[in-house]
Amino acid sequence: MLVNNQPYRTIWPHPSQPAITQIIDQRLLPHEFVVVDLQSVDDFARAIKDMYVRGAGLIGATAGFAMYTAALQSRDDHFDGDIVCYGKQLVATRPTATNLRWAVERQLAALAEIAHIDDKRQVAFTLACTIADEDAQFCKQIGEHGLEIIRQISEAKGGVGVNILTHCNAGWLAFVDYGSATAPIYAAQAAGIDVHVWVDETRPWLQGARLTAWELDQQGVDYTLIADNTGGHLMQHGMVDLVITGTDRTTYTGDVANKIGTYLKALAAHDNGVPFYVALPSSTFDWQMIDGVAQIPIEQRDADEVNLVSGLGSDGQIHTVSVPLAGTPAANYGFDVTPARLVTGLITERGITPASKEGVLSLFPEKKVLTEGI
Amino acid sequence: MLVNNQPYRTIWPHPSQPAITQIIDQRLLPHEFVVVDLQSVDDFARAIKDMYVRGAGLIGATAGFAMYTAALQSRDDHFDGDIVCYGKQLVATRPTATNLRWAVERQLAALAEIAHIDDKRQVAFTLACTIADEDAQFCKQIGEHGLEIIRQISEAKGGVGVNILTHCNAGWLAFVDYGSATAPIYAAQAAGIDVHVWVDETRPWLQGARLTAWELDQQGVDYTLIADNTGGHLMQHGMVDLVITGTDRTTYTGDVANKIGTYLKALAAHDNGVPFYVALPSSTFDWQMIDGVAQIPIEQRDADEVNLVSGLGSDGQIHTVSVPLAGTPAANYGFDVTPARLVTGLITERGITPASKEGVLSLFPEKKVLTEGI
Repeated sequence: MLVNNQPYRTIWPHPSQPAITQIIDQRLLPHEFVVVDLQSVDDFARAIKDMYVRGAGLIGATAGFAMYTAALQSRDDHFDGDIVCYGKQLVATRPTATNLRWAVERQLAALAEIAHIDDKRQVAFTLACTIADEDAQFCKQIGEHGLEIIRQISEAKGGVGVNILTHCNAGWLAFVDYGSATAPIYAAQAAGIDVHVWVDETRPWLQGARLTAWELDQQGVDYTLIADNTGGHLMQHGMVDLVITGTDRTTYTGDVANKIGTYLKALAAHDNGVPFYVALPSSTFDWQMIDGVAQIPIEQRDADEVNLVSGLGSDGQIHTVSVPLAGTPAANYGFDVTPARLVTGLITERGITPASKEGVLSLFPEKKVLTEGI
Repeated sequence: MLVNNQPYRTIWPHPSQPAITQIIDQRLLPHEFVVVDLQSVDDFARAIKDMYVRGAGLIGATAGFAMYTAALQSRDDHFDGDIVCYGKQLVATRPTATNLRWAVERQLAALAEIAHIDDKRQVAFTLACTIADEDAQFCKQIGEHGLEIIRQISEAKGGVGVNILTHCNAGWLAFVDYGSATAPIYAAQAAGIDVHVWVDETRPWLQGARLTAWELDQQGVDYTLIADNTGGHLMQHGMVDLVITGTDRTTYTGDVANKIGTYLKALAAHDNGVPFYVALPSSTFDWQMIDGVAQIPIEQRDADEVNLVSGLGSDGQIHTVSVPLAGTPAANYGFDVTPARLVTGLITERGITPASKEGVLSLFPEKKVLTEGI
């Protein structure tokens, strides 16, 4: 998508030096746009651990390129041992990130099939590009399917602007391109449909205020930032036509784990008859869990994320301020689970399905075997 | 309630110079506790307009003392004209604050009954004290009634701690003493019942993080600060026994206007079978409106309150930082309306009633005449 009117992905091989991978340092957004070169496995490990990159799709793609760098760094005479070791180092940076482990293991499995070292390195590069391209392609398809929902609402409103509310950042910054929740919005914009996005600021980390607002702004999509408290009021007054969020994990029965607060918006949507859709590539489905509220573990993070806020001061420098007194006891649950009963539908790369076991398995019949005996 | 282990109200006559009124400058909390002397009508006007004081009850009490100061300032030979003029000046500082107008008019009506100037000044002082005392007394009674709800939950849990969630600051800082939503909590603490409070930080102005957390801390009540997004997750997992909020205006049919985001917590409470109570002195009832969502006007405030956050920097100074890019379009609705169907009950100075026309009018039968013909 666009940054300063130039098309970007969130990760790409250096145009003239493919041994270098380039990323956007998302920690500095929206106040600074900085591209960083990653040249060693240590660089990649730091970028993942310290959240230069974040979001399931982007973490997976970063791990793909990291394993190519690992293949370059692995010694010719100790290749198999070295690359496994680098893979472990990478997985350890964010142990709960499913896509990180998945991309590392996909690379290791592919390399194990290849005999010659130089071929391995070439395969690792090709596969890294493939993982990134697949991520972008799946998001693009999510956009095409979701576009039809927006188009229908737009037609029902006689072409008057469609108001879409989203929570957190399931935008292109969280993937390689397009995003999940944002893909239908960008597709609608490209199709000439009038859309406006209500952007939840998404406390405590403020992904909406920092990232979603920025990427919509760069892309020229009309948007308004709101406190997370606001969506219910807007829905009561007919000011939201559609909610689309992403998800960090969705059970194949349709329960949706996503950034804390998503459940509250789903309740308000349900109470006001507003459609509530969740956009996800199928890699986000959990084929083992049947009860999201009971089974999905919810990460608890540092109290400082609640107590402290960073932003640009009047001196042009980034400052961190404490809103309550230092040491105020705070709880910081990262996610909540929206029960399937509140979800109108799931927008996947293969199409839209009800948030139910029957719906999901009819779209992904080959996964049925994974769910049997649970 | 306690500040640094000394009992305080939010407003009081100077102990040795009753012509001076003292208040807490709430703009500086929680990082500084500063008592300010108000000596002129201009001082009072500034304190109300610039939000040294806020909260319906406290604004009313401040206006009461302001009118005493106005009586002192009014010229003996132009008393009646002067004091009406001062009253208008005060009402204009926050034109939508019902209690401000009410206190000014109550003083003017009382003074009109008195013949001698010196008697007028004495009456104005006595009435200012009465308005403040009544506010504290009503909150105390709200506490006593609400205590029974907490006591029942505590007994049902076999004495295990009762977890109460609150939104915004309907604490003693918003009134003269005790608060509305907090009064039952302080009463439970005094009764030796184990309570713990989940404090919504309450974006955008962060009244929970700045004020509620501070006053609970000073009073020694166990509490945990949370992002506003968190309550739904806590309720899904049985971690909230009771929600109590305040209200800025409640229709006599039971629809509750309160700080933006209250409606989302009421939805989550309803979805999880958690009792949702609203505490209010009866002065907060609107005896004219029957449909809160349709009829109560919702104030829209400055976008800067969403985009900017103030707090204590590492240098010990208060800084204001911008989270999104400067000029990000933001909407800032101050309140939302929780429909009566989501409210378990209203805790008033006269007792607890269902959130319904029948319930409210049975507790306040003398108000029935106000509602007729609507």
